[in-house]
Amino acid sequence: MGHTLAEKILQKHTDQQITEAGQIVQCKVSMVLANDITAPLAIKSFKAMGATKVFDQDKVSLVCDHFTPNKDIDSAEQVKVVREFAEEMGVTHYYECGDVGVEHALLPEKGIVGPGDVVIGADSHTCTYGGLGAFATGMGSTDVGAAMALGETWFKVPPTIKVNITGKPKKFVGAKDYVLNQIGQLGVSGALYKALEYSGDAVDDLSIEGRMTIANMAIEAGGKVGLFPVDQKTLDYAEAAGFSGAETMVADDDAEYERVLNIDVTNMEPQVACPHLPDNVKPVDETSGLKIHQAVIGSCTNGRIEDMREAAAILKGRKVDQRVRCIVLPATPSIWKACMKEGLMEIFMDAGCIVGPPTCGPCLGGHMGILAGGERCIATTNRNFKGRMGSLEAEVFLSNPSVAAASAVAGEIINPAKL
Amino acid sequence: MGHTLAEKILQKHTDQQITEAGQIVQCKVSMVLANDITAPLAIKSFKAMGATKVFDQDKVSLVCDHFTPNKDIDSAEQVKVVREFAEEMGVTHYYECGDVGVEHALLPEKGIVGPGDVVIGADSHTCTYGGLGAFATGMGSTDVGAAMALGETWFKVPPTIKVNITGKPKKFVGAKDYVLNQIGQLGVSGALYKALEYSGDAVDDLSIEGRMTIANMAIEAGGKVGLFPVDQKTLDYAEAAGFSGAETMVADDDAEYERVLNIDVTNMEPQVACPHLPDNVKPVDETSGLKIHQAVIGSCTNGRIEDMREAAAILKGRKVDQRVRCIVLPATPSIWKACMKEGLMEIFMDAGCIVGPPTCGPCLGGHMGILAGGERCIATTNRNFKGRMGSLEAEVFLSNPSVAAASAVAGEIINPAKL
Repeated sequence: MGHTLAEKILQKHTDQQITEAGQIVQCKVSMVLANDITAPLAIKSFKAMGATKVFDQDKVSLVCDHFTPNKDIDSAEQVKVVREFAEEMGVTHYYECGDVGVEHALLPEKGIVGPGDVVIGADSHTCTYGGLGAFATGMGSTDVGAAMALGETWFKVPPTIKVNITGKPKKFVGAKDYVLNQIGQLGVSGALYKALEYSGDAVDDLSIEGRMTIANMAIEAGGKVGLFPVDQKTLDYAEAAGFSGAETMVADDDAEYERVLNIDVTNMEPQVACPHLPDNVKPVDETSGLKIHQAVIGSCTNGRIEDMREAAAILKGRKVDQRVRCIVLPATPSIWKACMKEGLMEIFMDAGCIVGPPTCGPCLGGHMGILAGGERCIATTNRNFKGRMGSLEAEVFLSNPSVAAASAVAGEIINPAKL
Repeated sequence: MGHTLAEKILQKHTDQQITEAGQIVQCKVSMVLANDITAPLAIKSFKAMGATKVFDQDKVSLVCDHFTPNKDIDSAEQVKVVREFAEEMGVTHYYECGDVGVEHALLPEKGIVGPGDVVIGADSHTCTYGGLGAFATGMGSTDVGAAMALGETWFKVPPTIKVNITGKPKKFVGAKDYVLNQIGQLGVSGALYKALEYSGDAVDDLSIEGRMTIANMAIEAGGKVGLFPVDQKTLDYAEAAGFSGAETMVADDDAEYERVLNIDVTNMEPQVACPHLPDNVKPVDETSGLKIHQAVIGSCTNGRIEDMREAAAILKGRKVDQRVRCIVLPATPSIWKACMKEGLMEIFMDAGCIVGPPTCGPCLGGHMGILAGGERCIATTNRNFKGRMGSLEAEVFLSNPSVAAASAVAGEIINPAKL
C-alpha cells in the first residue's frame, strides 16, 4: 500500500513503521513554535515538567506577533515572560522588536521551516507550512511546552482527503477563493483530524505564497494539516529562504484516500465567507451592496507580497471610501520593505489606507482595527467567528485581497470585476 | 499700558475691554476640538444642555487619534459615538480613517487653526497651536461640550511669564531641549494658569515646527498657553496650510510681565527629563549608560517631519540595538508620505525600527508600545508621569529625536554626539 504525503513526512521523523491511518506514532519535531499569547502558557508547562533547557536552541521559535507593538500592560508583561525565557534558554529564533513579523509568514521566509519538516506550534494556523510540504499543525500550549523540552511529540496518523483543484481561474480569483470554496463544500468540521492533500493543475500553477494561503486555512475545515507536494517551485522557494536539505516529494500513486474532492476553478467567482463561520461561503455577487466600515488586508492568510500587489493593483489611482478604514498590514518587515521598494506603499497611502506594522492585530480581535457593535468588515483573514474581530454585534466577511480592496473603494462589498 | 500676546489675542475675540490679568472675559472661539477619548464626554454634556446643533459646522474638529486604529471594543465604541455625532451634526473636520493624524499635528498642517485664533480643545496639549500665535488651551470635556453648542467660553486673562531664549545651539540641541530646560527651571507648576510668551533670537531662528514643540509643552509647566509672536515664517506656514486672514503680531513694548526667564542655549547640552516628572531635567550625559527597552519617536510634541528627519539622520546606516523596540510614529498621513518620499522610511526600516500609523499610541499608554514592569523607555513625547506609558513600575525618559534615536542604536541613553 502506498503512502499519502502526511504518512511520508511523519515516516521520516519516526522509527516506528507507519502502516495505517489511526496509528499512534512518536515523532521527532523539526521546529516548535509559540507566540506572545501561547508561549507564556507553554513556558509554564515546560517549567512544571522540571525542564531546565530546550531540546535544541535552534529548533524553538518564539514570535511575539499578536499584540505587538504591545497594546497594553498585560500584553507587555506576556512578552516580557517570553523574552526572559528566550534569553535564559538561548533561543536562536526569538522575535519581538523591529525583526518581528506574523509568525506564519516570517518562519517560511527566513527558512526556519521548510519541506519535509514536522512542525508543531501553539497556534491554530501553524498548518500554513503545509504549503511548503511540511507536516505542520497547531497544538495546545501544554503539548508545545513538553515538545520544547523533549524535541518530540505524538500524532495519530491522520486519514487523508485528497483535494484535486483543476482549471484556469478568471481574473480576481485565486488561492483564497479555492480554499473558501473548499471549506464551503467540506464544512468547518468536514476534515476534522484529517489531512488535506492538494493536487491538480491549478495547484501546480499556484505560487508558494498561494499554496500557503490554502494550507493556512486547513484548520478552518477542521483539518490537521493541509499538504502540498514538494515540486521545483517549492525547492526554489526553500533555497532562496536559506532552508537546506529539501527534496521533491509526491504522494505514492497507490496511496489510500478517505475521499477525493474535485474542484474545478474555471468558472469560479470570487468567494466570500459570510458571518459567522468560514464555511458560510457565497459567490461575491450574492453579498454585494452590503455597506462596510472597515477592510483589513493582511494576516498569515493574505499578508504576503503577492497579496499586497493584488490589493495595490486595485487601489492604484483610486480612493478608499471616506467612511471606510482600510487597514493594510504587510506580514513581515521584509514584505513591508518590498511594498515600499515596489511603490505599493505609495499606492496605499495615496488611496487613503492606514498602513500598520507587521502584526496579527485585528484578525484575532487583538488590536489595530477592532470593531464596534453594528460594524461590518471585509478581511483577508481566516476566521469570521462571532466576536472574532471585536464586538459580538459586528460582522466579518472573508475574501481575497482584490475583493477586500475593491470593497474598501466602493464602501460596500463588491466584485472587483464590477468596480 | 501695553498688552501681552495673550491679551492681544483674547481682545480680538471679545467685546469686553481687557485691562488686566485676572479679569474674566467671555470670548468667541475660532475652533473647538475633541478626540476619541474626550469627545464622547463632550457630546454627553452637549446633549445634556439640550443642544441640537453645533454653533458652526466648520468650527468643530473631532479627531479620533488616541486609540486608532481601534485597539479594543471600548475604543471602537467610543469612536462610533463620535462618528455618529459628527454625521448627525454635519461636522466638517471629522477624522477617523486614512485621513486621521495626531490632532495637534493635523490641525495646523491643514490650516484648520492658525495665527490669532482662540482654540479650545478637550486635550491638554491643545496649547501646541501657540507655536502659530494662537491662544490655544486645553479644557475639560464639559466646557468643550458647551462651547460646541455656544461658540464661546470664558477665560480668566492669564498673567504672562516672558521666556527669552537667546544664543546659537550646539549640534543635536533644539526646541525640545529649550523647553525641557525651561520646565526644569520653572517646575511643573511654575506657570500654573499663566501664559508663557517666547522671544529672543533663538526663538526667531526656530521653525514653526520647533515652536510648536515648545508651545506643546507649556502645560508641562502648568501654563495656560505658550505663545509665539507671529512673524513672516508663521505667515508663510499659515498660507501654505491654507489658513487665511493671518497677520503679524508682537507683544507691545510696554506689556507687563509677571516674570522674565532668560535662557541662553549657547552651551546647552541635550536635555533629558527623568522619571517621573517633566521637570526632573538633566543634561543627557548625567543619564547616559541607562539601558533601555524601547524608544518612541513621534507624538504631538515631536512627530513632525523635522523630527523624523532628525531621527533619520542618526539612524542612517546604523542598526537599532536588537533588544530595543524603536517605534516610529509619523504624526499625520502627510508626514508619513513625506517620510516615504524623502527616503526616511527606508532608513527607519533598514535600521530595524517599527513604523506605525499616525496615532498618539504609546505616549499616553494608549497602545502601540506599552511598557511592562521594569522596562525603561526613552521617548520624544511630553509626559513621563508614573504609569503614563504602561506599568507603574516602568520608567520613561523624555528627550529630543536625536537623543531617542541614538539611544535606540546604543541600547542605552546616550548623547548623540558620543554615538
